[in-house]
Amino acid sequence: MAAGKHSGLNERALIADIFAPLVANTPGAFNLKDDAACLVPPAGKDLVITTDAIVAGVHFLKCDPADTIAAKALRVNLSDLAAKGAEPLGYTLCLALNEECTIQWVRDFASGLQRDQLGYSISLFGGDTVKAPGPLSVSITAIGTVEKDAMIRRYGAQAGDIVYVSGTIGDGAFGLDVARGLYGGLGEVHKEFLLQRYRCPEPRCALVPALRQFASAAMDVSDGLIGDLGALCSVSGVSADIILADVPLSSAARSLVCGDDNLLHRTLNGGDDYEVICTIAADDARAFEAAAKHCRVGVSKIGVITTGTHCPKVFDNNGKQITLLVERYEH
Amino acid sequence: MAAGKHSGLNERALIADIFAPLVANTPGAFNLKDDAACLVPPAGKDLVITTDAIVAGVHFLKCDPADTIAAKALRVNLSDLAAKGAEPLGYTLCLALNEECTIQWVRDFASGLQRDQLGYSISLFGGDTVKAPGPLSVSITAIGTVEKDAMIRRYGAQAGDIVYVSGTIGDGAFGLDVARGLYGGLGEVHKEFLLQRYRCPEPRCALVPALRQFASAAMDVSDGLIGDLGALCSVSGVSADIILADVPLSSAARSLVCGDDNLLHRTLNGGDDYEVICTIAADDARAFEAAAKHCRVGVSKIGVITTGTHCPKVFDNNGKQITLLVERYEH
Repeated sequence: MAAGKHSGLNERALIADIFAPLVANTPGAFNLKDDAACLVPPAGKDLVITTDAIVAGVHFLKCDPADTIAAKALRVNLSDLAAKGAEPLGYTLCLALNEECTIQWVRDFASGLQRDQLGYSISLFGGDTVKAPGPLSVSITAIGTVEKDAMIRRYGAQAGDIVYVSGTIGDGAFGLDVARGLYGGLGEVHKEFLLQRYRCPEPRCALVPALRQFASAAMDVSDGLIGDLGALCSVSGVSADIILADVPLSSAARSLVCGDDNLLHRTLNGGDDYEVICTIAADDARAFEAAAKHCRVGVSKIGVITTGTHCPKVFDNNGKQITLLVERYEH
Repeated sequence: MAAGKHSGLNERALIADIFAPLVANTPGAFNLKDDAACLVPPAGKDLVITTDAIVAGVHFLKCDPADTIAAKALRVNLSDLAAKGAEPLGYTLCLALNEECTIQWVRDFASGLQRDQLGYSISLFGGDTVKAPGPLSVSITAIGTVEKDAMIRRYGAQAGDIVYVSGTIGDGAFGLDVARGLYGGLGEVHKEFLLQRYRCPEPRCALVPALRQFASAAMDVSDGLIGDLGALCSVSGVSADIILADVPLSSAARSLVCGDDNLLHRTLNGGDDYEVICTIAADDARAFEAAAKHCRVGVSKIGVITTGTHCPKVFDNNGKQITLLVERYEH
């Protein structure tokens, strides 16, 4: 692990005291006392590599708890791995601290990492801390494994495939609104749920076995359901018809959007979902649902892949196409 | 590759137009049109993983050319891989752009990456761009390969081993001074050389065969020769005696430090060298020098590993211990 210098925090001490315990069980990380980590790749498997950065004021709020910032930085990457059918193995971390970060903040941040390392059975491979003016930012590169040639691609969806999405959609975007003080009339339990969904998305690693067995294509929904589905369709050379009423909403989101088309439509273009969207051959649909249930991850059928290269269409229950009222979400 | 949004630069277009060409020859990167890259690890080899971030105003100057910023971000990571005896394979990139970055800047940045991808035979695996206030920053995670269990460690130096360093020491720190307007009397050729050494360090990938064959321990010198040697010694449970006059200086550095003990000492604690320091069993010294020559990388014997756990000692030509006048370099 490399220590940036010039920091009131004494970054060498940070590494020794706070980050080294995170690699106590990672033999190839050498207690962060070397220039690099050594990873023995599991024989015969492919590695899946993804990288995502989160920045204060863009992807999380400056006032968010340090441990949830750490969790979010890690989980947005694990979410990508899950959508690719990969078992997470470990990650590297680049942490840009600013003057406002106290040692307690860094401790809390590391405790968030530690908790998720245990929860997702992953290791820290190494990292770098730098002290810089500007917003706090966290860059993570995560590595997972799949069987040979078995990474699930965005490419592969075929007309007639059923479109499924995991969990519920829209909570992350509404959680950000709650953090900003909106929805004063919403009950505290709902508010807390939405906030938690924004701060601590749940990567669908548990769904990996079902995805591996059945998905013809998959991706992680992070930038809005319809836009991301459009990206998957575009790479696959297809389109999709989505039934708005079938898009799964949490009871918190449902109580918000009730009767408000603007908010209802926003669920489709809101970001920060970190759910998996996947396509399943129609003949496999029932088996996929059973497998997902076995994985204890809720999945909802929301539409069907169609021919054509137009943007996915959204329909109401009467088969009437809906023009979305809300522009694409921006972090 | 993930696109941050909310950018005047239209980051989806940046990825498609500017970054996708960087993966044209990387089959597992899917033209940056998927959530993750697929890497087939070479059978029977270990992977070496390192990550380093560079930030404007800390590790490079805001006014540095975009292509050299890209090169430096990549090379500081390749330097770590080289010191571990690893062949570089590829890298992921997180790029935090700010309002001042134009599309031409990003093009120049990518051309710097492209040039080094060719020069070092490496691939881009994927990346993330975010738009954020604050200084420009670049985080890279680099992956290389070594034969099984053959990663060269900082651990392993033994009393009696000879201490070698590649290239020349101090140029990076002096180059930063030049960039800041110091050394007005120095000739333009020397100035340009030092500037280039600061902006575009040369990772010693070419030395890898010699290191693999002979090094008992090695690390990359990035935070000052004596401090980094101290880190290597500390992990190995040894110390070292260094002969100041044997520390290799470029003619530019030599013309600066001539008669100025303060500057001479600064070469030992200056940062940004990105050379390799390694230890070689005394019996292998001649063979290592021949192997390094074969690799066309200059190496200089600068001292010897000793017993004890004290900081490395520095001596003049008369065997008198020198107290360094210059504090440890800070980026």
